Amino acid sequence: MTEPDPTALRRNDFPVLRSLPTRWSDDDTYGHVNNVVHHSMFDTAVNGWLIEASGVDIRTLPAIGLVVETSCRYFAELRFPETVTAGVALEHLGTSSVVYRLALFGAASQQPVAVGRFVHVYVSRDDRRPTPVPPEIRRALATLGGPGSVSRS
Amino acid sequence: MTEPDPTALRRNDFPVLRSLPTRWSDDDTYGHVNNVVHHSMFDTAVNGWLIEASGVDIRTLPAIGLVVETSCRYFAELRFPETVTAGVALEHLGTSSVVYRLALFGAASQQPVAVGRFVHVYVSRDDRRPTPVPPEIRRALATLGGPGSVSRS
Amino acid sequence: MTEPDPTALRRNDFPVLRSLPTRWSDDDTYGHVNNVVHHSMFDTAVNGWLIEASGVDIRTLPAIGLVVETSCRYFAELRFPETVTAGVALEHLGTSSVVYRLALFGAASQQPVAVGRFVHVYVSRDDRRPTPVPPEIRRALATLGGPGSVSRS
Amino acid sequence: MTEPDPTALRRNDFPVLRSLPTRWSDDDTYGHVNNVVHHSMFDTAVNGWLIEASGVDIRTLPAIGLVVETSCRYFAELRFPETVTAGVALEHLGTSSVVYRLALFGAASQQPVAVGRFVHVYVSRDDRRPTPVPPEIRRALATLGGPGSVSRS
Repeated sequence: MTEPDPTALRRNDFPVLRSLPTRWSDDDTYGHVNNVVHHSMFDTAVNGWLIEASGVDIRTLPAIGLVVETSCRYFAELRFPETVTAGVALEHLGTSSVVYRLALFGAASQQPVAVGRFVHVYVSRDDRRPTPVPPEIRRALATLGGPGSVSRS
Repeated sequence: MTEPDPTALRRNDFPVLRSLPTRWSDDDTYGHVNNVVHHSMFDTAVNGWLIEASGVDIRTLPAIGLVVETSCRYFAELRFPETVTAGVALEHLGTSSVVYRLALFGAASQQPVAVGRFVHVYVSRDDRRPTPVPPEIRRALATLGGPGSVSRS
Repeated sequence: MTEPDPTALRRNDFPVLRSLPTRWSDDDTYGHVNNVVHHSMFDTAVNGWLIEASGVDIRTLPAIGLVVETSCRYFAELRFPETVTAGVALEHLGTSSVVYRLALFGAASQQPVAVGRFVHVYVSRDDRRPTPVPPEIRRALATLGGPGSVSRS
Repeated sequence: MTEPDPTALRRNDFPVLRSLPTRWSDDDTYGHVNNVVHHSMFDTAVNGWLIEASGVDIRTLPAIGLVVETSCRYFAELRFPETVTAGVALEHLGTSSVVYRLALFGAASQQPVAVGRFVHVYVSRDDRRPTPVPPEIRRALATLGGPGSVSRS
């Protein structure tokens, strides 16, 4: 099985789209949004959506999502004051872990400027040992559709 | 002359209002938006508005605005995923310098969560020596009204 | 009483000096450390010193220091990979509040690149109401010397 | 070929080690260094070392390194004021691209807290088209040893 071309992803491949403005200080010495900021956008898109979709403050649940893996591939440059649209999709839901597929779209193009992956493992707040994904989170994830449910038009 | 009470400032005291979402990583170990982030919001509000209102990319002008002074007073806590409204007003326009008065408003209250001051000095891009505020910037600032022109209702 | 010239401050005007390296992403589109980063350096210098000098994890005390005021004046530019030396001095110790005077020194000059002020108000962790500065913090601050105790050589 | 266990990596697997202090605002609402910061540490370690080892300001070369891929796996939590040691190794050197293998080590353990990958593609500063890795960068990379040259003791 070959991996599909990530630059072929479009906004409508993602069940959730979040609007994320850039900040002045996001641009680095090369005059474009620094590579680190994309990860902050992923983090913000996932957690912001989780808070909204679950209807609970996920930070107060007995289990919290620790980030165990992040990755990003960059295809084009962003620049302040561009507003980014982040696409969030569910790639895998395990017992304790959730894998998200993410993309960032700039204002000017149908193609993503970046595509990433973001993995949460749920742990007990107190002892930080893996624990099942909380029901509040599972209910929110169910609205994303399962892997494969996001059909390309 | 006594300084007016900054907590009495309201959204309609500011000719420009900008919407600035928080990010997940803005919250620090105390579970609130870290004090540093407010300065990033000021920076973003001023420069974002300048780019929009001047209609030019201010970064390509022969004179650029260097920040020579920033300050912030904090009255209440912010927390992700709150969206902040930043108010921008002109406090003083000099030959080479522009002083902005800023406030940040949270979603829940009429009172500002923070009030600040932000000073640009325009310098020649090449030798970084003070130079007059560029005409493109002056024209944008004229739409803000002068100091005192923002009347409290 | 006129305010002393802040550019006349030197490293030996500060009882505590902390070494703070810059990061690649600190530099913004103008190729210098963004004004926001200086505030992060102040925050880091004060809290890092407090943890070290008090010998306790200040985050676990029943009272925590909330930042109620920050300010910075910028005299020169910094650029990655410069390592900054932050000077920390006690300007005022009140019942619930601590005012710090700070300066940042670059590698190349005796003059500060920036001078700032940073105010903590101690509040009860639970209800966030002002409370006296904890004894662990007071003992650490005593080693800074009182205001005026820092004599210029 | 199975991928070697990344948690088995040790400081002496990396020809370059860089010391990177945490900042107060690196810790997020969960009281640990936010996942985004690790990428900032990678960025800082690679570019800081490149500037030092090449003896030139890499930002002024006709070709600059754009980041096209980043990834990080997280094995343990970091917390301010811990100082991190970043290990940098060369994984692959192509015509226009450089792949770095990175690890972050905390103060308390021989095991890495995080392991990552960071890919630069060199482009012409003006038109941003791929161009060969500049000789100044190649000479610096030569001191890292080639892939496989870093033997495990």
